[in-house]
Amino acid sequence: MNKFALLPLALIAASPVPVLSPSEIVAAAKSEEWVAIAPSNLLVMDLAADRDAKPRRVVIQLMPAPFSQGWVGNIRTLAAAQWWDGTSVNRVQDNYVVQWGDVTEKKALPDGLVTVPQLEYEVDPGFDARKLREELGVAQLPEGGSVRDVFAPKVAFQSGWPIGLENLSYDVRKFRGWPVHCYGMVGVGRNMPPNTGTGAELYTVIGHAPRHLDRNIALVGRVIAGIEHLSSLPRGTGDLGFYKTAEERVPILSVRVGDKVSGLPRYEYLSTESASFAAYADARANRRDAFFIKPAGGADICNIPVPVSVGK
Amino acid sequence: MNKFALLPLALIAASPVPVLSPSEIVAAAKSEEWVAIAPSNLLVMDLAADRDAKPRRVVIQLMPAPFSQGWVGNIRTLAAAQWWDGTSVNRVQDNYVVQWGDVTEKKALPDGLVTVPQLEYEVDPGFDARKLREELGVAQLPEGGSVRDVFAPKVAFQSGWPIGLENLSYDVRKFRGWPVHCYGMVGVGRNMPPNTGTGAELYTVIGHAPRHLDRNIALVGRVIAGIEHLSSLPRGTGDLGFYKTAEERVPILSVRVGDKVSGLPRYEYLSTESASFAAYADARANRRDAFFIKPAGGADICNIPVPVSVGK
Repeated sequence: MNKFALLPLALIAASPVPVLSPSEIVAAAKSEEWVAIAPSNLLVMDLAADRDAKPRRVVIQLMPAPFSQGWVGNIRTLAAAQWWDGTSVNRVQDNYVVQWGDVTEKKALPDGLVTVPQLEYEVDPGFDARKLREELGVAQLPEGGSVRDVFAPKVAFQSGWPIGLENLSYDVRKFRGWPVHCYGMVGVGRNMPPNTGTGAELYTVIGHAPRHLDRNIALVGRVIAGIEHLSSLPRGTGDLGFYKTAEERVPILSVRVGDKVSGLPRYEYLSTESASFAAYADARANRRDAFFIKPAGGADICNIPVPVSVGK
Repeated sequence: MNKFALLPLALIAASPVPVLSPSEIVAAAKSEEWVAIAPSNLLVMDLAADRDAKPRRVVIQLMPAPFSQGWVGNIRTLAAAQWWDGTSVNRVQDNYVVQWGDVTEKKALPDGLVTVPQLEYEVDPGFDARKLREELGVAQLPEGGSVRDVFAPKVAFQSGWPIGLENLSYDVRKFRGWPVHCYGMVGVGRNMPPNTGTGAELYTVIGHAPRHLDRNIALVGRVIAGIEHLSSLPRGTGDLGFYKTAEERVPILSVRVGDKVSGLPRYEYLSTESASFAAYADARANRRDAFFIKPAGGADICNIPVPVSVGK
């Protein structure tokens, strides 16, 4: 006897309902769910043209308050001073980072840079535990709260950014929060602690998320366009992927804050407080579109990249 | 009054004890902790030379039993038939995969390929739950069992490979196990399910671990040398990162099983059952070397890549 004979017809009829993929959910998001990124919060880096004379532009969204604002302020000062012009990309380490800045380490820094203390790696994220539950709510997390994490006690998305969170032991309503090292995030190279770096030496992640760097190095932004101009560079053959020769280094023509660059397209991110983002995150953690046979039932936070769109 | 005045001198003296970094632990591993990889378990892919006439060789370690052996058998048949010679790398999608095979999808396949069913995505890993605890033991996992996972109920290293594990509900002493999608892993492209692919169309991971593919696609090996010849290729500008033109594709000169290739160096991996691997995994999850100020206290399994060495 066929043991499936008792399956109600209604269930059989329900099964072929089309299920959207994450990219289809993003494509269907309403225009008001997208948040424009002000040009003043972009950093635009133009590299020398490639061997085929094609231009190479990398666009970075700077980290908003309350995170890393000491370093972000330094980066604004460095860009205003046109400090990076004439420096270079000096290190490309496979499955890790691309790093740029002054390879001589002797170029004079502009006035006005601040020394940021280590304690700024973690800050008050600006909401309490109740708000995370009741206002941001589980709607922001995939079904079943499946954004679990192995590096941080808790993770969440805040104003478009993936962050780690830890309850304060002396006040459980409060958190410390910090940005996390996902693919494309931009961080501040530094020397041995307690040095925290100025922001003059920057890197971006081009491999599996090196989350062990969280709370050990400042993150100041993320690449939102043109990362292929960094991630597809030849790997350096020196220690840690540094280029051995001057010829291998990629010249940086200019780095400017976006409001000093004409003709930029409009960049937007999908609000992480939107219904479409919640559906997208859930779909990333539970793929039910036709290609998949076994939804994972979870995802790590770096497997839920915040969607960015480029307009005209 | 200085509140640190009561700190015992013995503690002060103890603090500067040098703590080894993960790479220093690997460098100090004993020779008997390394396991030679037989040339018959390697797949050697030679791409056309690059624009500077430099050769490009990619070396893949094939997945051992009990995992994915149907597809691995097909790959041995395809290599013996020299089937990939004259095919190409056709797709490079940033932060995802590089894919190669016959772009026409019309090249006749050799005789003898088997059709592998979906249920082979998960297999009996060959040990029971007691053995995992008592024989493999927590010594194989970072201190505190901190290889937690958000995609699989359990993860472990088995004979040099990262695997996911799930207890069988009808026999809790038993597991199902499967290889997991970390950076550099090699998988089998396929069409819509229940198609599982033959092994003729292959890809490797060049970004953050796409663990949602676990148990949805077969994994057949990992790149152990030359991944930079794939990960640094220009990104394709077509849908899913496919190259749009024939000129962009990278010709594959030959793919052979390693015992048909003369002059290969000796490849070894650090035994995942060794004391040095346990110390290395612990150090990856709890960085205490001088650069770090805050150990993560955990790591995901793809953040603990199995060390491979290349001899003469």
